[in-house]
Amino acid sequence: MTAAPHPIIILVRPQLGQNIGKAARAMLNFGLTEMRLVAPRDGWPNPNAGPAASGADIVLEKAQVFDTLAEAVADISHVYATTVRKRGVTKPVLTPAEAADAIVTAPARSAILFGAERSGLDIDEVAMARAIITVPINPEFASLNLAQAVILCAYEWSKHQSLKSPPKVDIDPPAPQGELDGMIEHLFGQLEERRYFFPPERMAATKQTLRNLLTKPGWNSLEVRTLRGVLSSFDKRHRKPD
Amino acid sequence: MTAAPHPIIILVRPQLGQNIGKAARAMLNFGLTEMRLVAPRDGWPNPNAGPAASGADIVLEKAQVFDTLAEAVADISHVYATTVRKRGVTKPVLTPAEAADAIVTAPARSAILFGAERSGLDIDEVAMARAIITVPINPEFASLNLAQAVILCAYEWSKHQSLKSPPKVDIDPPAPQGELDGMIEHLFGQLEERRYFFPPERMAATKQTLRNLLTKPGWNSLEVRTLRGVLSSFDKRHRKPD
Repeated sequence: MTAAPHPIIILVRPQLGQNIGKAARAMLNFGLTEMRLVAPRDGWPNPNAGPAASGADIVLEKAQVFDTLAEAVADISHVYATTVRKRGVTKPVLTPAEAADAIVTAPARSAILFGAERSGLDIDEVAMARAIITVPINPEFASLNLAQAVILCAYEWSKHQSLKSPPKVDIDPPAPQGELDGMIEHLFGQLEERRYFFPPERMAATKQTLRNLLTKPGWNSLEVRTLRGVLSSFDKRHRKPD
Repeated sequence: MTAAPHPIIILVRPQLGQNIGKAARAMLNFGLTEMRLVAPRDGWPNPNAGPAASGADIVLEKAQVFDTLAEAVADISHVYATTVRKRGVTKPVLTPAEAADAIVTAPARSAILFGAERSGLDIDEVAMARAIITVPINPEFASLNLAQAVILCAYEWSKHQSLKSPPKVDIDPPAPQGELDGMIEHLFGQLEERRYFFPPERMAATKQTLRNLLTKPGWNSLEVRTLRGVLSSFDKRHRKPD
């Protein structure tokens, strides 16, 4: 497998089926498909999860359910616990980006724990993790919901995948200088005809200013041709009735 | 100001008040407070926004409403358009992280545009931006909702907040969009007068092409004024002897 190792997303005592669905959607958006549920409050499956998943049904269908967190992480080597507040535990605290770095370089399986919507993970649950993930958030307004916490972790992990950067748009290279010069000289001719360069002793400096600002864009050949067309429309004025 | 420059979040034709509220919450979680709304479908204020904001009322209360995108970006120098699909426009495509890098080092105001929930930004709206932001997403399941797109951009921006380094001095920031629009409209008026747009049914597409290539340079205010002078010299033709 050439792809980076996938972390498993474990929702611990999730309350609302809708939030489980939204978490599934957030996961699949960034290529994560393995979800585990520990003691979901309203049982499983939950009819509210599917609609909220907006098509990420594959994640919900494959979701595994466990009675306890201990069972859910039994085959996992690296457990990360997400938590907003510091809890006085002496564990490394990582950002989502740092955790993603650790996950993709670990040869063994990793999992990220997310607590119940209202209360988060409790101290015993955090104790099962080797490290804590804390999203650096506005200290005056820390109101991250479950799906948002999931999406930020999944997003950071996905940066390490081959899909990490959108293919760069193949921007056309700037037109050869000769084409650009042709356009600039066309314009200069028109401006001289209209006595734009005044007083005459400032003509050289003004032309230099114009040349600089017309060189700055790096227009491609098509764009230069389009602008030649614009300039030509000004040449045609003599043929238009006033 | 020691903090990194804050981008303005602009929701273009948002449909549901609930989604406006969720976007506000996503913003404030990462310290962004300036929201602008362009032609919200159900008017403003919207009673569904507040509850969805989960306490981020300050963002909604300060939100400014505009009839058109042109008015909403008139005082903005760096406009970024979020879009999932490639649209055949030759603009730089940035990830949220790359856009955040650009925003925090720009001394002039930046804004990020988000389109309507269902349809996204249309081509004319994207044409007003200097660059595109595309979230690198699972190509087989691209189902990012509005608040999620907002939160990823806000999150990436917030990573720079702890950095103490002052913004780079950019001697020549691009002119505010309103100045550029003034120049473009001046040119369009001249071209219409000269029947450049032919056949008439291609006028919208041709204007879009011209707008894209005139937005690409990022001309500063002085350059835009210089070009206005050039255009004015073409206005004066009637007063010149042939």
